[in-house]
Amino acid sequence: MNDLKAFIQDNKDRLLQELFELIRIPSISSKEAHKDDMYEAAAWIKTRLLEKGAEKAEVLDTDGHPVVYGEKTIDPSLPTVLVYGHYDVQPVEPLNLWKSPPFEPEIRDGKIYARGADDDKGQMYMHFAAFEYLVKTAQLPCNVKFMIEGEEEIGSPSLGKFMEQNREKLAADVILVSDTSMLGPDDPSITTGLRGLSYVEVHVTGPNRDLHSGLFGGAVANPINVLCQMIGSLTDDKGRITVEGFYDDVEVLSKEERAEMARAPFDEEAYKKALDIAEVHGEAGYSTLERTGIRPTLDVNGIWGGHTDPGAKTVLPSEAHAKISMRLVPHQDSNKITEVFKKHFLAIAPPYVKVDVEFLHGGEGYVSPTNTVEYQAASKAYEITFGKKPIPVRSGGSIPIISLFEKILGIKAILMGFGLESDAIHSPNENYPLVQFFKGIETIPHFYKNYVEMKK
Amino acid sequence: MNDLKAFIQDNKDRLLQELFELIRIPSISSKEAHKDDMYEAAAWIKTRLLEKGAEKAEVLDTDGHPVVYGEKTIDPSLPTVLVYGHYDVQPVEPLNLWKSPPFEPEIRDGKIYARGADDDKGQMYMHFAAFEYLVKTAQLPCNVKFMIEGEEEIGSPSLGKFMEQNREKLAADVILVSDTSMLGPDDPSITTGLRGLSYVEVHVTGPNRDLHSGLFGGAVANPINVLCQMIGSLTDDKGRITVEGFYDDVEVLSKEERAEMARAPFDEEAYKKALDIAEVHGEAGYSTLERTGIRPTLDVNGIWGGHTDPGAKTVLPSEAHAKISMRLVPHQDSNKITEVFKKHFLAIAPPYVKVDVEFLHGGEGYVSPTNTVEYQAASKAYEITFGKKPIPVRSGGSIPIISLFEKILGIKAILMGFGLESDAIHSPNENYPLVQFFKGIETIPHFYKNYVEMKK
Repeated sequence: MNDLKAFIQDNKDRLLQELFELIRIPSISSKEAHKDDMYEAAAWIKTRLLEKGAEKAEVLDTDGHPVVYGEKTIDPSLPTVLVYGHYDVQPVEPLNLWKSPPFEPEIRDGKIYARGADDDKGQMYMHFAAFEYLVKTAQLPCNVKFMIEGEEEIGSPSLGKFMEQNREKLAADVILVSDTSMLGPDDPSITTGLRGLSYVEVHVTGPNRDLHSGLFGGAVANPINVLCQMIGSLTDDKGRITVEGFYDDVEVLSKEERAEMARAPFDEEAYKKALDIAEVHGEAGYSTLERTGIRPTLDVNGIWGGHTDPGAKTVLPSEAHAKISMRLVPHQDSNKITEVFKKHFLAIAPPYVKVDVEFLHGGEGYVSPTNTVEYQAASKAYEITFGKKPIPVRSGGSIPIISLFEKILGIKAILMGFGLESDAIHSPNENYPLVQFFKGIETIPHFYKNYVEMKK
Repeated sequence: MNDLKAFIQDNKDRLLQELFELIRIPSISSKEAHKDDMYEAAAWIKTRLLEKGAEKAEVLDTDGHPVVYGEKTIDPSLPTVLVYGHYDVQPVEPLNLWKSPPFEPEIRDGKIYARGADDDKGQMYMHFAAFEYLVKTAQLPCNVKFMIEGEEEIGSPSLGKFMEQNREKLAADVILVSDTSMLGPDDPSITTGLRGLSYVEVHVTGPNRDLHSGLFGGAVANPINVLCQMIGSLTDDKGRITVEGFYDDVEVLSKEERAEMARAPFDEEAYKKALDIAEVHGEAGYSTLERTGIRPTLDVNGIWGGHTDPGAKTVLPSEAHAKISMRLVPHQDSNKITEVFKKHFLAIAPPYVKVDVEFLHGGEGYVSPTNTVEYQAASKAYEITFGKKPIPVRSGGSIPIISLFEKILGIKAILMGFGLESDAIHSPNENYPLVQFFKGIETIPHFYKNYVEMKK
C-alpha cells in the first residue's frame, strides 16, 4: 500500500468537500422538522457509495429514518466486512454558543468545526474514502458491505427490526465501526467496552394549575421543590445511586483488571483544566477512568418547570419535568434497570403530588475481548500508522446497537475510533481534527489487509 | 347614598367597556418588549382620572415604568385619602392554557376573563368608578389623591425613590388599596397582614461546556444533579426551611391568636378538590391557613438546565438555574433573609461546581391593627354592602409597597380587597366575578363616608 499516502495527499481537498456536502444536510434525527433532511442525507450517501465502487446501493425504509445499504462482492469465498456508521446527528442547541454555524463546516486551527464533523459523518466518511482507495487501486482484499443508519442519536429504535428482516443481506464476518475516540492524538486506543443506557423522562404534577406562590406557597406542595428532593435523593453522599437493585448485576472487576486499567495515560490536572472545574466528582473509591469506564451513572440531562424567562414571577407551578439517563455496565440489563428506576421513583413519590416515569430509550452495553482476529488486525493497523500499539479502553459512552449486532446478526464488532475527547461531540463547536480524519483514512485499509491475512 | 345602586345599574356596561379598554393594553412590567404598553396604559389612566373628576392628573417618570398621579382637593382642612393601585400585570405564559386570549377580555359565567381582570386593573378601576360617582353626585366627603404605579408585579423597584421625592405631593391620612382577596363571595374579609418577599435566582456552573454524558458522566459533577441536591436540602422532612438563621426573627403567635385565626371559615376538602391534590403539604404542626398566613416559605418558582426539548439528548450540561422566592412574616427583614439565604446557599455549594446567587427583588411584610379608624370605617362599609362583618385575615401574598408607604410616607394603608381565591391571579384564565367588581364599587363610597365621619 505504498500509494496510500499519495492517494490521500492527491485527494485531500475533494474528500473534504464531499464530507462538507454531507455535513451541510442538517440531519437531526430527534426532530420531526428534519424528516426530509434524513432522506436527503440517505440519498446522498447512496450516490457516494455507488460512485466509490459499490455494485449496489439502496435506501431502505424502516419504521423510522431510512438505512442506506451498499455492497461490493469480489469473491464469496473471501471474508466480508460490514461497515456500520450513522448519518444522523445530535441537536445543535444552544445555538448562541457556536462560533460558526453548526451546519456550515469551517476549518479553523486544523480542525473541521460542524455538527457531525466527528460524530459520525466525519468518522463514517473515512470508510468511504478508504473504500474508494481500495477499489480504485484494485487492492480490496475482501467483500464489503455498508449499513449506514439515521437513528443512532435517538437510540436506533428501528434498527433491531431492520436487522432481523435483513439477516441474509447483512451476513458478514465482522462489523467495522468508527464512532468512538482515541485516548489522545498520539495515544491510539481501541474501545473494548461501551456502557448501556436507560433514558427516561419524569413528570411531577402538583395542583391542577399554576398558582400564586404567595397565596398558596407553604400549604400546597411545589412540584419543583418535590422533583429536586426526589432527584437529590437518587445519589447518596458517597456518589452511589440509591435506586434499589441498581447495582445488583454490576460486573465487579478484579484487582488485576483495575491495575491494568490504571496503566492508561491520564492527566487529571489537564482534564480538570480543560473543563475548568476545581475538582472531579463521582462515586467514592473509584478513579475518573473507572467512573466512566466500569461504573454505572445517573445524570439529569435536562430539567424544566415554572417561570424560566427573565425576571421574577411568583408562581407555584403545576408541573415540573426532568430527563434522566443512566449509563450501564456489563451484565446490567437496560430493561431491568428502567424497571427498577421506575419502581423506585414511584415509591419515593410523596402523596401530595402525582409522578409519572416515561421510558425514552435504552440499550445494552458491550465488552469485546482483545484476543480476536479483528482486534489484532485493528491493533496492527494502528501500530503501522501511529507507530504505537493501541491501548484497549472501556469507554463511558453507549452505542446500544453494538450489542444488538451480536444478538441479532451474531457478528462481533470492532470499534476503530479516531475521535478525540476534545472534539466536543454532542456539544456546541463539535470538531474533528484534519489529522485524525486523514490518519483514519490511512489506517482503515491496513485493517482490511491484516484481517484477511490473519483470517487465512 | 340612595342613588349609589342606581348609578351602578345605569353605568354597568360603560364602566365595563372602560375597564376592558385598559385590560387590552398588555402592560406586562417584567418584559422589555412591553415598555411602550406601559406608557400607553399610564396615559390612558391619566385621561380617565381627569374625565372622572380629578382637577389634576399627570404621568410622572420614575427610574422604571411611570407612575400616574391625580388629585381632587375639596377642602384642605378635610382628610385626604390616597388611592394606590397598579396598572402593570404578570406575564401570561403558558399561553396554551388560556381559554380566551389574555388581553381580549371576555365575560363567561358572570366573570371577566383576562390578565389583570382582578390583579389589579379590575380592582383598581372600582376606585375610578366610585370616585366618578362621588364627584358626579357631589357627595365626595374628603380630598382624594391617586397613585397608580406600573411596577408592582416586579417588586416596585422605583416607587421608594419616587415617594421620597414626592413626599409633599403624596401627603395623606390613609392609603386605600384594593389588591387583595376576600375569604369567599359571601365571606367578606379585610387583609390585616401580608408576607414579605425575598426573590433570588441561583446559578450552578460545572464544566465550561456541555459535555457528552456518556464520556464524562460519573466523573464530572452534573450541575442539575447538584442544584437538585442543594434545593432538596433547603427543606427538611418536617417541611422546615434549613437555611441557617431563617427563623430567627419570625413572629410567634400566642395560642389565643392562633385560636382566633382558626375561626376563619375554611373547607380543606373543597380546597384540595379545587386544586386536584390528594393532600395539602407544608410545615408540620401548622394548619393550611397558618402555613400561608403566619409562616414563612421557600418555593422554587422556576428551574431550567440541559436539554428541555422533546426527545433524548445525552448531555451533561454546563449550567443549571433556578428562581427561588421566600415569603416572609412580620419581623423577618427581607434584606437580612436574602443575606442568610445567600450565605447558606454558597456554604452548601460543593467544591466541584461554581455557585452564584443573584438578588431579583424583595420587600417587607405588613401587619395592621384592627382598632384604627380606617379599619373600622372599612369594616362598616363591607357590613353595609355584604350584610356581614368582615373577618380580619392575614394573607400569604406580598405587596412589598404597603410597608414602604408607612416607612417613607408615614401613612397606614387599609387593604379593601374584593378578589376571590378562585380568580387565578398570576395564572392562566385569570378572572374577576362581575358581582365582586360591582360590589366593590358599591362598598368604596361607604368607606369614604364612614372614614370622614369617624375621623371627626
